[in-house]
Amino acid sequence: MNSVIGYHTTKFGELWEKSLFDLVEESIEGVLKSTKLEAGQIDAVFFGNMLGGMLDNSLLSSARIAEIMGVNIPMYRVEAACASGGMAFQMAHEYLKANPNKTVLVLGAEKMTDVGADIITKGLSSASAEEEQTAGLTFPGLYGMIAQVYLQKYGYTEENLAAISVKNHYHGSLNDKAHFRCAITLESVMKSSYVAYPLKVLDSSGVSDGAAGVIITNDKLLITNSKYNVNILSSQIGTDTISLAKRKEITELAATQIASEKALQESSLARKEIGIVEAHDCFSIAEILAMEDLGFWERGKGGKYALEMSSQIGNGPVIVNTCGGLKAAGHPVGATGVKQIGELFLQLTNQAGARQVKDVKSGLAHNVGGSGGVAVVSILGV
Amino acid sequence: MNSVIGYHTTKFGELWEKSLFDLVEESIEGVLKSTKLEAGQIDAVFFGNMLGGMLDNSLLSSARIAEIMGVNIPMYRVEAACASGGMAFQMAHEYLKANPNKTVLVLGAEKMTDVGADIITKGLSSASAEEEQTAGLTFPGLYGMIAQVYLQKYGYTEENLAAISVKNHYHGSLNDKAHFRCAITLESVMKSSYVAYPLKVLDSSGVSDGAAGVIITNDKLLITNSKYNVNILSSQIGTDTISLAKRKEITELAATQIASEKALQESSLARKEIGIVEAHDCFSIAEILAMEDLGFWERGKGGKYALEMSSQIGNGPVIVNTCGGLKAAGHPVGATGVKQIGELFLQLTNQAGARQVKDVKSGLAHNVGGSGGVAVVSILGV
Repeated sequence: MNSVIGYHTTKFGELWEKSLFDLVEESIEGVLKSTKLEAGQIDAVFFGNMLGGMLDNSLLSSARIAEIMGVNIPMYRVEAACASGGMAFQMAHEYLKANPNKTVLVLGAEKMTDVGADIITKGLSSASAEEEQTAGLTFPGLYGMIAQVYLQKYGYTEENLAAISVKNHYHGSLNDKAHFRCAITLESVMKSSYVAYPLKVLDSSGVSDGAAGVIITNDKLLITNSKYNVNILSSQIGTDTISLAKRKEITELAATQIASEKALQESSLARKEIGIVEAHDCFSIAEILAMEDLGFWERGKGGKYALEMSSQIGNGPVIVNTCGGLKAAGHPVGATGVKQIGELFLQLTNQAGARQVKDVKSGLAHNVGGSGGVAVVSILGV
Repeated sequence: MNSVIGYHTTKFGELWEKSLFDLVEESIEGVLKSTKLEAGQIDAVFFGNMLGGMLDNSLLSSARIAEIMGVNIPMYRVEAACASGGMAFQMAHEYLKANPNKTVLVLGAEKMTDVGADIITKGLSSASAEEEQTAGLTFPGLYGMIAQVYLQKYGYTEENLAAISVKNHYHGSLNDKAHFRCAITLESVMKSSYVAYPLKVLDSSGVSDGAAGVIITNDKLLITNSKYNVNILSSQIGTDTISLAKRKEITELAATQIASEKALQESSLARKEIGIVEAHDCFSIAEILAMEDLGFWERGKGGKYALEMSSQIGNGPVIVNTCGGLKAAGHPVGATGVKQIGELFLQLTNQAGARQVKDVKSGLAHNVGGSGGVAVVSILGV
């Protein structure tokens, strides 16, 4: 069984004084320190990053990390847009299945705030279809279309979306690594400016810098001797068309459905055994779709459960985005999928402090690339 | 045992009428046809590409390929600069070790000729260290420095380098998929303009478009029923500092040495059992270093063996770059590492036509990222 034995994340935010690889270095040092491991004890590195080439002219990050760590081990850089971190974790999980008695480092990082809005918007749009780019559709535009159909189809209003952000900001207010560490009200979301109707500024995750790292191992002795360990019960990928127009349904993500069915099967868990979910809330609507596609919420009931705040700490049965999600914790895209795994690790080992969910034994992380072209679902348990 | 059962490559060249994903589609169709498999029989895809984000604004290529193939299976995009294709192959090999009875597609592609020289130069420089970029060092500059030290250290002249290009162009003249399908003379190399002293235009691989695909499987029934199959005896990665200045030796690539030692050990072969090598000849000097670092040529003797044309078809004992190498076949960077595997497959199954090496039972592919920050070495045999 592969286990997560350590986690470290930098603060997420506008970290102008730090470069992409300053952040990577900080996450490496932090996670090694937390596990009392040396760089020489790591057998391979998996690095999730989306925009290092386009924004920072830095590809071949494997060699950059080899230089930072002073080692010559295998290093893989994977890119799956906003699912880059989850994909790196999933690959590491597969790698360990093939390689006994190994310990690997999974890193995710993104540096986004040093460039202008036009550059970051173009960079992010690289994860959309050519015809969508040509039509001028940005990601808020794509998710705005999904939200319009969802609200109309099931008879909800913008308040049903806004409630997701209120919950996530409450959770984020309890997380000292969060980019936006402040509670907000439903009224403030509703009063915020439209980005792409019906989505507003406060329905949307921001642009952040940050890096996160987890160490995973299948070395039984190391697991036994670790202060904390959480089992990786499964990690699976689903893919779909990059183009929204080519999908059968606009209010469902098939990639999430496929990945979660496979992950649940691999884990041998029922949904009701999962107490916490880190869902990909790039926009408020995305968290509602996620909970429906993952099968936790009945199709079309997401808007209702959102407004009831059923997934807020203290309520239940399933608590979503305890760290604040992409919305409040911030969304340095490559880091997000690794941070999700880290948040589950903290919760499942009772290290989550003010935002700790009680008596939680298993959790699910859900990381999406683009408008649903890729989804990675991982399940962890103690 | 994992086996390669099919290969297809597009023509390499200035393919202005085709987009990056036109080329990817062509390679998918070609390799599926060659194996008589349907897209639905593929369990996962590994895609090596370097510059799709920077030159084409197309990241999340996993979903683009899912759309082309009409499937929802796991897809991984990996980037390791010019070693992206080799890295994708190595990952696929690890994946199959963990997943029995699976068949996967490894793709590599690059579209480079549609943009101006300044843009492609900047894009390629993203695989060098920040201080190298700041100093204005391009890849010809980095390899030019290596070449200067090598020539001086071992008392060679520019002719010793030039001979590599003469051999590779002769091989390329026999390959109908090659970008530069013409034999050249030592005199023509020597008369070509300097790019970065002592390297000249004809010491340097060009800028090309192209895509290549191989299908690999561990499904015993499929292997038995395949018209052609070649065993993957090993595939290993070595990494090193991204910065040339931080290495112990400027005329050796530690990443190649580490990857090849591990690959030879995994394969249980001795070097003398390997009849063909696909070496990473981004510049003529790089092939000489490769043959020394891989251990086929004694340290410092590379210049001599090069001028003796010992690695040309018909000579021996080891024949290098039968397809023409990066120099003559072309170097669409993400495609190169996959094409190397494909060339070994063709040679080992007696499908190499005019450039067939006789009685060859095993071959080695060597793919380098940057100035040696990453190297992938794979060994195939029948």
